[in-house]
Amino acid sequence: MAHIDLGLDEQAHPGINGPMRFRPETAKPLNDLAETLLRAPHPSLTPGERELIAAYVSGLNECGFCCASHSAFAAAQLPRGMPLVDQVRADPATAPVSGKLRALLRIAAAVQRSGRAVTREMVDAARAEGATDLEIHDTVLIAAAFCMYNRYVDGLGTWAPEDPEAYDRAAAHIVSNGYTAS
Amino acid sequence: MAHIDLGLDEQAHPGINGPMRFRPETAKPLNDLAETLLRAPHPSLTPGERELIAAYVSGLNECGFCCASHSAFAAAQLPRGMPLVDQVRADPATAPVSGKLRALLRIAAAVQRSGRAVTREMVDAARAEGATDLEIHDTVLIAAAFCMYNRYVDGLGTWAPEDPEAYDRAAAHIVSNGYTAS
Repeated sequence: MAHIDLGLDEQAHPGINGPMRFRPETAKPLNDLAETLLRAPHPSLTPGERELIAAYVSGLNECGFCCASHSAFAAAQLPRGMPLVDQVRADPATAPVSGKLRALLRIAAAVQRSGRAVTREMVDAARAEGATDLEIHDTVLIAAAFCMYNRYVDGLGTWAPEDPEAYDRAAAHIVSNGYTAS
Repeated sequence: MAHIDLGLDEQAHPGINGPMRFRPETAKPLNDLAETLLRAPHPSLTPGERELIAAYVSGLNECGFCCASHSAFAAAQLPRGMPLVDQVRADPATAPVSGKLRALLRIAAAVQRSGRAVTREMVDAARAEGATDLEIHDTVLIAAAFCMYNRYVDGLGTWAPEDPEAYDRAAAHIVSNGYTAS
């Protein structure tokens, strides 16, 4: 049971969905931000790659609901699916991703610890792998945003499904309809 | 100099203002969220109290720009001004605030560490001091959101003014115009 009375059936509205229904005024910009960062047209990062950064950071924050959700959303949009997501979450340094994505994931991991943990060397390394200023910006903001979403979900003690199929169903919905439809 | 080329004079657009001009698509929901959380009409938490939570969390995250900004924004809207902000930042347990606000600041500090650090006991203690579900919700989300804003500002290595008057001028602008005007 969540720390506050959300006024709804938590099993029907798991994780972030409960607080978003409880407070639609804040749900609107939270969903708009997710849609812009993760799904809006982007010159070089695919939705699957952006969801992968979100899943990776959510795992580092040990947020079960967000990690399972965004892992499923990434897997549904990446050619190599959940095996790749699992490899990245286990160790981005050895996962079969591009050098550019690996360097961006390293920046994301630093942001998860603290904004001040990002070094000029990490940024230069990403740029040497071909990362653009926009990619570096968006990686920092995706990682920072999931330090918010993860704390929102866990700070209110929300309920998370254990059944992986629940996250696959959510992935199908997000891939078809995006974050701002509900 | 910021980690990426923001394409502008950083001293004219310090801290979060640079990345927001670099990427207006994400600035929109970020500003909408700040406006809703910190300034929109609220049944019981004043803008000054909400800015105080933001300043306190930004201090815990050691984000110089956000802490100086939201300390100034809180001071401008609290009857006891900057002396109270300084006392809360130094030690909320002994600062002259209500028992309710003290309990909410304790929850905010837990969120800053991790969403999972918020305990049922902390929430019950806040409720015993008269905190509502909405106040607990908003405290968790303000604290979570500043774990994002702080990482965004520092993760991109933005420049922050040292002159306190720069933050007082920003406070006058925010108090008059809000977060969505610029």
